Amino acid sequence: MIPGGGLPRAGADRADRPTLAVVGATGAVGTVLLGLLSERADVWGEIRLVASPRSAGRKLTVRGEEVEVLALGEEVFDGVDVAMFDVPDEVSARWAPVAVSKGAVVVDNSGAFRMDPDVPLVVPEVNAHAARVRPRGIVSNPNCTTLSMIVAMGALHAEWGLDELVVASYQAVSGSGKRGVDTLREQLAAVVGTEVGTQPGDLRRAVGDTGPYPAPIALNVVPFAGSLAEDGWTSEELKVRNESRKILGLPRLRVTATCVRVPVITTHSLSVHARFENEVSVEKAHEILANAPGVVVCDDPAAGEFPTPADAVGTDPTWVGRVRRSLDDPRALELFVCGDNLRKGAALNTAQIGELIAAELTANRA
Amino acid sequence: MIPGGGLPRAGADRADRPTLAVVGATGAVGTVLLGLLSERADVWGEIRLVASPRSAGRKLTVRGEEVEVLALGEEVFDGVDVAMFDVPDEVSARWAPVAVSKGAVVVDNSGAFRMDPDVPLVVPEVNAHAARVRPRGIVSNPNCTTLSMIVAMGALHAEWGLDELVVASYQAVSGSGKRGVDTLREQLAAVVGTEVGTQPGDLRRAVGDTGPYPAPIALNVVPFAGSLAEDGWTSEELKVRNESRKILGLPRLRVTATCVRVPVITTHSLSVHARFENEVSVEKAHEILANAPGVVVCDDPAAGEFPTPADAVGTDPTWVGRVRRSLDDPRALELFVCGDNLRKGAALNTAQIGELIAAELTANRA
Ligand SMILES: NC(=O)c1ccc[n+]([C@@H]2O[C@H](COP(=O)([O-])OP(=O)(O)OC[C@H]3O[C@@H](n4cnc5c(N)ncnc54)[C@H](OP(=O)(O)O)[C@@H]3O)[C@@H](O)[C@H]2O)c1
Ligand SMILES: NC(=O)c1ccc[n+]([C@@H]2O[C@H](COP(=O)([O-])OP(=O)(O)OC[C@H]3O[C@@H](n4cnc5c(N)ncnc54)[C@H](OP(=O)(O)O)[C@@H]3O)[C@@H](O)[C@H]2O)c1
Repeated sequence: MIPGGGLPRAGADRADRPTLAVVGATGAVGTVLLGLLSERADVWGEIRLVASPRSAGRKLTVRGEEVEVLALGEEVFDGVDVAMFDVPDEVSARWAPVAVSKGAVVVDNSGAFRMDPDVPLVVPEVNAHAARVRPRGIVSNPNCTTLSMIVAMGALHAEWGLDELVVASYQAVSGSGKRGVDTLREQLAAVVGTEVGTQPGDLRRAVGDTGPYPAPIALNVVPFAGSLAEDGWTSEELKVRNESRKILGLPRLRVTATCVRVPVITTHSLSVHARFENEVSVEKAHEILANAPGVVVCDDPAAGEFPTPADAVGTDPTWVGRVRRSLDDPRALELFVCGDNLRKGAALNTAQIGELIAAELTANRA
Repeated sequence: MIPGGGLPRAGADRADRPTLAVVGATGAVGTVLLGLLSERADVWGEIRLVASPRSAGRKLTVRGEEVEVLALGEEVFDGVDVAMFDVPDEVSARWAPVAVSKGAVVVDNSGAFRMDPDVPLVVPEVNAHAARVRPRGIVSNPNCTTLSMIVAMGALHAEWGLDELVVASYQAVSGSGKRGVDTLREQLAAVVGTEVGTQPGDLRRAVGDTGPYPAPIALNVVPFAGSLAEDGWTSEELKVRNESRKILGLPRLRVTATCVRVPVITTHSLSVHARFENEVSVEKAHEILANAPGVVVCDDPAAGEFPTPADAVGTDPTWVGRVRRSLDDPRALELFVCGDNLRKGAALNTAQIGELIAAELTANRA
């Protein structure tokens, strides 16, 4: 089932439909979410926009209408059925339970609740059913790196049974929010037209401030994303591991990730080595992926067809290409996947979960 | 043993020392090689510079002296003891045997002879001994992607016995020669200061010509390097596999590579998942790598220390960091490695092999 089926049609009276609050409407993810809410089948009654007091009173456009931004506070959740949170972890941690206490179902994009056993972690194409059981009234949205590959992996897992993932990422700067994008653009402006990038340290000197990154990101790759966790792993690498296990319902799945930031604006890419319990074939993989909702196969390298961020950016699906069977192991596949980290990696998945819940609420009311 | 030990000292009479020809002296690799020949302990008598007829008569500086470039032809090898070839495959294929027939030992940087069973494929820190047996009079230099990791892998293999490598690369544009560098710089100039990189296809429209690459390389990553080989693998990916096996003397080593071009000028990076026959530990890996010639350990992420191209470019060693033991497999290590593709990845390894041969020739003469 493609999420979004069976929803009330545009044109029905908005008064009958659930009220939505978007918390963090002014951010990188929030901005893309407002665009998606304007493009997709309209399932919402009122849409209320919320951000920090800094943004209160700003007007943003959603569904072609100007809406004034409200400062986050208890009263913004009055009468709200679904609240989508696209704010930093600590803001979600504090305010999502407030929204729930006021009767809203929360769809949270932060890392605050993802590994809470009482909070489902949902990717509609993979585990839509999990969104129905929400002991805390909260549904979590996975992080963007996991989301960039998990739809494709879920489809292959359903056929062959996943045994192990070894992943290396190529992560875009918009994954760090607006500040990441600004940093890359400023650094590029500082190095363009120079000979920088050929002598040790010349790039560090040329770019000066490294912004949210621990090293220059223009003309460089930075093998460190998130914060340092235990035993040398980063928080981002452990998220890929723990969230993949939770979404796929495979608590003992072997997962190893190395997360690397690259000078790309938007769209995360991943090189994936996936080992299954059964023998695989490239033809069958193509067939499974071509039939999987939310996946596009782009795999004809002889014709120059493989996924790249330049082509996947701004689109909804997970793009999959460079599918090869391991030369040493008939149960292992190599794939290269690209997904827009602001769309499927964040706002789109949130919108999809919201639509599942809207359909459920509407059905319950009927 | 660090290659370069036991060689004739600078100051000895050049007439006693072997004559060297550098074929391809004007190219990306050749240029770096001339710099290295000028910096390193001087083991050579005459150094003759050779390129295509297009460059004949140009003057280049080596060892502080101006030397006129000769057009490639049989006579340039008269009296030459060692000839280093840094030219396209087809030029090596044709001319290396000519140099051998004139009495020279050839050190070839191209892909023309690497997998020939009668041509040793040499990385002095790993298999210096192999350079002594050269049935065809030729020693091959591995490709730059393999070279960026193999010194570190060789050291770990010696301790624990390598069983499998799963590699994802982040390859710099200078790996495609001068044309790659020019292409990235031109594309960056076209996109800097714009909003390009956020809409599908906007990057393709903005950069126009993609030069030696099948997709834009500025603000993008391109999961395709080399040419298409069998079953969806690229030539570059098969080189990593076949050359790693040959250098390490492990013809059945399991190796899987995905080669990806990134917008970095010089220095290839690799995310490596390495599985061994024995249980590993991060502490011991640090110790082995710290003691390995040609390797620098840069692994204190809490202090912002991990290898990046910005820091490794222009330096000789293989930089290794982000060393982690797999959370699921006590025999697997994750590492992130960086190596300058023009130095250790090409010119430096060639210079080192040349020095091994110079020492052998000098010892034989004495
Ligand atoms: N970027 C991605 O690819 C991505 C992907 C998946 C998940 N996420 C997660 O999504 C969340 C938002 O990320 P982003 O990239 O959109 O960040 P961002 O661009 O920095 O936006 C942050 C948003 O949170 C609001 N906010 C901050 N502090 C607040 C407060 N105290 N009270 C109310 N609102 C507050 C901001 O409002 P003002 O404008 O008023 O400050 C803004 O709307 C984060 O948890 C992030 O980890 C991001
Ligand atoms: N770039 C790397 O990172 C790297 C790493 C490892 C190995 N390699 C290999 O090293 C070789 C050189 O690569 P590069 O990147 O230095 O290439 P490049 O920048 O294109 O230089 C090519 C060199 O070959 C010479 N040449 C071309 N055709 C010739 C001919 N018909 N006769 C005589 N000389 C000729 C050129 O001389 P003119 O200037 O006169 O045309 C120039 O000196 C290639 O086989 C490459 O695969 C490169």
